[in-house]
Amino acid sequence: MMKNDKYTIVLDAMGGDSAPGITVHGAAQATLESPLHILLVGDKEALQKELHKHKYNSAQIEIVHSPDVITMEDNPKSAIEQKPEASIVLATKLVAEGKGDALVSAGSTGAVILSAAKYINRILGVHKTALAAIYPTHNIQNRKDIFSLLLDVGANIHNSHHDLVHFAYMGATYAREIKKIESPTIGLLNIGAEEYKGGEKLSQTYAILKSLSELNFIGNIEGNQIMHGLADVVVTEGLTGNIALKVMEGMASSVKHLGKIAYKQNVLWKMGLIMLSGGIKKLNSVTDYEEYGGAPIFGFEKMIIKCHGRSTHKAIKNALKFAAKSVRDDIPGQISRYIADYEYNHAVNDLEL
Amino acid sequence: MMKNDKYTIVLDAMGGDSAPGITVHGAAQATLESPLHILLVGDKEALQKELHKHKYNSAQIEIVHSPDVITMEDNPKSAIEQKPEASIVLATKLVAEGKGDALVSAGSTGAVILSAAKYINRILGVHKTALAAIYPTHNIQNRKDIFSLLLDVGANIHNSHHDLVHFAYMGATYAREIKKIESPTIGLLNIGAEEYKGGEKLSQTYAILKSLSELNFIGNIEGNQIMHGLADVVVTEGLTGNIALKVMEGMASSVKHLGKIAYKQNVLWKMGLIMLSGGIKKLNSVTDYEEYGGAPIFGFEKMIIKCHGRSTHKAIKNALKFAAKSVRDDIPGQISRYIADYEYNHAVNDLEL
Repeated sequence: MMKNDKYTIVLDAMGGDSAPGITVHGAAQATLESPLHILLVGDKEALQKELHKHKYNSAQIEIVHSPDVITMEDNPKSAIEQKPEASIVLATKLVAEGKGDALVSAGSTGAVILSAAKYINRILGVHKTALAAIYPTHNIQNRKDIFSLLLDVGANIHNSHHDLVHFAYMGATYAREIKKIESPTIGLLNIGAEEYKGGEKLSQTYAILKSLSELNFIGNIEGNQIMHGLADVVVTEGLTGNIALKVMEGMASSVKHLGKIAYKQNVLWKMGLIMLSGGIKKLNSVTDYEEYGGAPIFGFEKMIIKCHGRSTHKAIKNALKFAAKSVRDDIPGQISRYIADYEYNHAVNDLEL
Repeated sequence: MMKNDKYTIVLDAMGGDSAPGITVHGAAQATLESPLHILLVGDKEALQKELHKHKYNSAQIEIVHSPDVITMEDNPKSAIEQKPEASIVLATKLVAEGKGDALVSAGSTGAVILSAAKYINRILGVHKTALAAIYPTHNIQNRKDIFSLLLDVGANIHNSHHDLVHFAYMGATYAREIKKIESPTIGLLNIGAEEYKGGEKLSQTYAILKSLSELNFIGNIEGNQIMHGLADVVVTEGLTGNIALKVMEGMASSVKHLGKIAYKQNVLWKMGLIMLSGGIKKLNSVTDYEEYGGAPIFGFEKMIIKCHGRSTHKAIKNALKFAAKSVRDDIPGQISRYIADYEYNHAVNDLEL
């Protein structure tokens, strides 16, 4: 193969509701916009058929055949074992073996995380990896970038205060390198502002984060403050992060649902909504998840981007470019150095907490 | 005192952002609409001055003097000790001594809960009391009553699976007696639909709830489903419930915030919003927390209603009437019988879990 590029991103081309149509389309587009190299993992025939539908730079795409796929109906845990030839498993192995620098998948979140956990090394010192959600805040007037990062949102159920501190480093690295925020603000999701709130684990985490001069810790963030955008990175355990994220998603779709009812019920409301449509479109464009492509999974030695199952080709394309950027900026390496320093400096102190 | 009524509700007249103006106004109004008897606890002179501003039935209101108040700036834990004459402390004691049947306060949540915990007995078998939030769902077309109940929302941080089952009984009792729902649906807040999700505690809770024929358990509810209104009662630990509730509140105020920006930025959007104002008003009226008055605190032998600090007099009035209804229907007694039966039937089984 001709390798005229720096980074090789492995794409699980069979993962996602509209795979492989959408995934191949996104990959094809990415090769036209960026010098990255892509390994498309999936059913060879199907992928070739899809590729023929699009313009792409053939020197930058290579197909790796996989005869099987893990679907949303599969139990992720058993499927990883029972389908060793599934696209996500082969894709993960390629990354683990160094044939790719990063992994992108829109398949089952559980399968992506479990497959990565099985084949890709965790960063030394990291006990728990984190799924991070990029979400829009309502801070649309005062910031260039209205997105913040919430982690973990479901790779774990419960986490230790150690894990939470690691998550803060992971998020800070992302915000600094990818979003170019010089000193990203870090918040701890809690039930009140005071240092002692939320039980022993959260108050321990608060005390440690406050003591770390390399992190710009701004204190506890309550549920209603998540969307204010004061914190570039909001740290929490998997269970609470998952619930907070889904409540946000649910509220957003409730507003749309109520809008639809209003549209049908009353001519005046219908006209009002039509007049507002420009604003709604503008809002949609600045809060568009497609621009970001996917949710990074931090804590592995290689970068992994989990795309939404309903991803469009644009979201896949942007996830591939985001993955390449993460490799270029060596996000895993930076997280690794951060955590090594922290563990070295604080392991002894921490024992005394 | 003349007691021409059945129930005596004790009102902490000094609690709340606009106390005692709002609290006295609400109490005065309640006596005109309902035969309940009210003990107003607070600064005698200030309360008398406020009472003179309103029409009320003097046979139904009695003032109990309290020279002190716990403010939002006080640390609730130490204030309960250091201000034994504070209105919330005296009000709680009156209820504990049987001079009142229920307690209503718009003061500091921490002070209300801690004062109750100090003076009022918990129901036998109940280890943790629960603060329950009544919140509007988007199910505005298919239900007469669009409100659901979420508990606990912050009386606790963490809870055992025992506590969570108790919370289900508390919520079910409320929904059946106050909302008159024959077989209220119960959901467990979790990160996925499957029974095994969310770790050991939640899967144990799932198994127990499923086994209880007297509860209409419909399974796990994910964060985005909270506002669908499928479950009349959503059960969760205090930390997750607090975060979920505040994310809902935060999202609602974000929508308003974005509306305000749109209103200012563009004449067309401004007109659109004006046309929609009828719909927004209608929505506000069906989702109006004032109608419900406050958040019940379950698990004590006496009923306690915590009103929002920003309560209007209407909210206070409705909280007083809600408290009287709870006494009439003997909510604490019903919860007590439920939990006694459960503990008796399941204590042995549970040991084997």
